[in-house]
Amino acid sequence: MTSGDLVAALTRLSESATFNRWAGFEVTAAEPGRVELRMATKDDGKQYAGFLHAGLLGALIDTACGFAAYTQVGAVLASHFSVNCLAPAVGDVFWCTGEVVKAGKRQVFARAELFAEDKDGQRKLVATGETILMVA
Amino acid sequence: MTSGDLVAALTRLSESATFNRWAGFEVTAAEPGRVELRMATKDDGKQYAGFLHAGLLGALIDTACGFAAYTQVGAVLASHFSVNCLAPAVGDVFWCTGEVVKAGKRQVFARAELFAEDKDGQRKLVATGETILMVA
Amino acid sequence: MTSGDLVAALTRLSESATFNRWAGFEVTAAEPGRVELRMATKDDGKQYAGFLHAGLLGALIDTACGFAAYTQVGAVLASHFSVNCLAPAVGDVFWCTGEVVKAGKRQVFARAELFAEDKDGQRKLVATGETILMVA
Amino acid sequence: MTSGDLVAALTRLSESATFNRWAGFEVTAAEPGRVELRMATKDDGKQYAGFLHAGLLGALIDTACGFAAYTQVGAVLASHFSVNCLAPAVGDVFWCTGEVVKAGKRQVFARAELFAEDKDGQRKLVATGETILMVA
Repeated sequence: MTSGDLVAALTRLSESATFNRWAGFEVTAAEPGRVELRMATKDDGKQYAGFLHAGLLGALIDTACGFAAYTQVGAVLASHFSVNCLAPAVGDVFWCTGEVVKAGKRQVFARAELFAEDKDGQRKLVATGETILMVA
Repeated sequence: MTSGDLVAALTRLSESATFNRWAGFEVTAAEPGRVELRMATKDDGKQYAGFLHAGLLGALIDTACGFAAYTQVGAVLASHFSVNCLAPAVGDVFWCTGEVVKAGKRQVFARAELFAEDKDGQRKLVATGETILMVA
Repeated sequence: MTSGDLVAALTRLSESATFNRWAGFEVTAAEPGRVELRMATKDDGKQYAGFLHAGLLGALIDTACGFAAYTQVGAVLASHFSVNCLAPAVGDVFWCTGEVVKAGKRQVFARAELFAEDKDGQRKLVATGETILMVA
Repeated sequence: MTSGDLVAALTRLSESATFNRWAGFEVTAAEPGRVELRMATKDDGKQYAGFLHAGLLGALIDTACGFAAYTQVGAVLASHFSVNCLAPAVGDVFWCTGEVVKAGKRQVFARAELFAEDKDGQRKLVATGETILMVA
């Protein structure tokens, strides 16, 4: 598949998840073993201090890792994911890149980085994460 | 504080987070070091196969752990959380219990269990998780 | 198998690992889904401040989880483990209990608690951990 | 400090830990935020199938991350570490690189990669890991 085909296939997959539609995830780039997601900040997506909620940090990281795995092995199901909160997740737009570390026959190990972009277009790393996925 | 006071304080804290209001988190029980959350299933909260989205698994676990920590040390900020997906998260209502494992001066370690309840009131453990929080 | 048979089988398994023999792991109790290990403190097992080295914290937790899984599904291989360091691991003897959280057809989720015992026989929780194992 | 000074300081730190001496860890490279460790395979370091024991995977990853943090913030204490076992850890020599992801005032987030080298000098990624360290 070309990169454009992968973006189209992952966009369809994302649109089939009601949470992803609500959150407004966009697949902005994809190649074998690597994807990029974009999400605009959401009024309904904040924790008590106004930062992006841990649930959305986790959702972006889990989705970016799962989609990266999908580009190499097809359907997967997450069995574990973790999130490191490095800095307050404040921004107008969030970008999440996921990449496959190792794709085995039964399991895929992937990791992700999440960046917050401010009004001036400056990006800052705010979270990292890992995911272990079972090949379906 | 009495258990009722803790539930009231945590409910106010939860209502101050726009994501928690959107998700419909209810604080159903609280005592020092332990809390219980309830969330009804949401049309907008699903992944592509119709299970509860990883973002909501993570949000419930992170919130239950953070609230359990709050009952012992006050304001905290998560620096790490992880989620184990044990079984498909399908149910009408989800219950998440968080408990403090160790509350230190600078860090709190907490863990959580997430149960799915079906129409017949049967509960099944669908996820577990851990959180490390910094005392604010 | 009786509890005694499980202890004997796990002891043979442990003795087949050169690191376990070096570390002096003893299987002190076993039942389906749960095991207990004992290790005396070792002169060669310390980090720079004299606490039990992270490598031995990890080895005890990984082994206790793997042995607990073995009692339910037979041979397994760890794909992920994590350790939370709750308190300085100082003691004459260390005890580690591992238990299965969920044993599936392909994966087993387990967790462990590690206690340090002082000269007076007082035990203190010094670490917790989790393991994800693949059924071999 | 020059790179050589950092290697010398970390070597002294490593030699002060009895486990590191037993395991034979060598600090082979160091710069601010990044270190490399080397360990020859050990007869006493194996699990039951003859692979490098999880305890040594964890020890190498925890040490490489801790030393990388040390180059930026001085003394640290690990509060959490995790290990992903990607492939059987079989080799004559193991190399572990640790790097700081984010060094804050209170916490440092680091990650590591562990490679096995065979007789022909070929290196293979066998494990990855993460560590969260508290500034002492």
